[in-house]
Amino acid sequence: MKGKLYLIPTIISDNTQQLVIPQRVKDVLVGIRHFLAEDIRTARRYLSSLKLYSSIEELHLEVLNKETPDNVIVQLMQPLMQGLDMGVLSESGCPGVADPGAVAVAYAHTQGIQVVPMVGPSSILLALMASGLNGQQFAFHGYLPVDANEAAKKIKELERESKLKNQTQIFIETPYRNNPVFMHLVKNLNPDTRLTIAMDITGSHEFISTHPVSVWKGKPVEWPKTPAVFLFLA
Amino acid sequence: MKGKLYLIPTIISDNTQQLVIPQRVKDVLVGIRHFLAEDIRTARRYLSSLKLYSSIEELHLEVLNKETPDNVIVQLMQPLMQGLDMGVLSESGCPGVADPGAVAVAYAHTQGIQVVPMVGPSSILLALMASGLNGQQFAFHGYLPVDANEAAKKIKELERESKLKNQTQIFIETPYRNNPVFMHLVKNLNPDTRLTIAMDITGSHEFISTHPVSVWKGKPVEWPKTPAVFLFLA
Repeated sequence: MKGKLYLIPTIISDNTQQLVIPQRVKDVLVGIRHFLAEDIRTARRYLSSLKLYSSIEELHLEVLNKETPDNVIVQLMQPLMQGLDMGVLSESGCPGVADPGAVAVAYAHTQGIQVVPMVGPSSILLALMASGLNGQQFAFHGYLPVDANEAAKKIKELERESKLKNQTQIFIETPYRNNPVFMHLVKNLNPDTRLTIAMDITGSHEFISTHPVSVWKGKPVEWPKTPAVFLFLA
Repeated sequence: MKGKLYLIPTIISDNTQQLVIPQRVKDVLVGIRHFLAEDIRTARRYLSSLKLYSSIEELHLEVLNKETPDNVIVQLMQPLMQGLDMGVLSESGCPGVADPGAVAVAYAHTQGIQVVPMVGPSSILLALMASGLNGQQFAFHGYLPVDANEAAKKIKELERESKLKNQTQIFIETPYRNNPVFMHLVKNLNPDTRLTIAMDITGSHEFISTHPVSVWKGKPVEWPKTPAVFLFLA
């Protein structure tokens, strides 16, 4: 019998583990000793904070990130072949969404290993829920291009697509780029397009607001360096 | 002061509330007396099952579905204007995603009402996590056309788009149509395209499997009439 590969959500805002991580995640974690994580230190701190283990030293954590070569992934997943369950942890939120966890999952499927996703916080999904934009059709695009001209081109292209398909367009950004991304969006989108800014989701400074671009234009804003999700619907 | 609009997730598989609904949802629910729900009976049963209220009769539940006209939504949301918090419940999973909750949220944003999304189960997100397909770019398309020719056309169009953008394509289907949808996908997709079938997510018969279409073709399957998510990546 092979082990199961559990996809373990982590918090997206500090000190929220007792509020947003469901009981089943904790029940499952108690039985797991082998983990793959983007960053060992963050993962260890998170697992430790749940107070499920008598000693955090008994846990085996290995790095899985976007640089990990395929042959190393095969080695990292050996415990599963020996019948041991494993957990994949993201740096923030749900593994396999906007993070490198998907490669481990893809390999598991080729080996007939059961993959079990656990419920937890996803800034993308929570931002979509709270946006009031179309949740019947939506697309996540990762990051916008850094170059202003390329960003403008991409935004206009996605706005056309949004209008054509009635599709909500979703992006994330590294916190220190919130201000340029907001400016690219406000500058390049049509005045009637609804734009949502969602910051520090689940945190004590959670801010989620949707307005037509024309309204955002009238609000000169200096955004904090906080994880953010941007959504629009033309 | 206006009330807050809380987006309350519900279970996606029977009798899982103690496992998949985080503590914060329960903490918030204790303070809410006014709810909007797609189906009053399901919502009442769910709220009752959480054992948070001394009497379920003290709760005010109103229907919000895709037939609810805009002017009625304005009336339904009056408690918020009077400073009372409200909750929006979906028939299954997270409100605002593939359900009518988004219209209430959109209205809230026009009135400056704070919208607070709660963490909970989403079959779309959990299926994506467990698919091993690309979680850096993905799109949700709702339902496929029922007509076989239109479904074939749509599938081929989305497969081209998937290849071009490296975008995971996601659908849901009403349970009794699982078999025709599976056949449309297997018949029309390229042999190398990876196809994920995800059924009864979070339930006791959870099944999530990813294979190239060529492999699925060799497995004649009779799918159960269970809620399912279909995903592919060309």
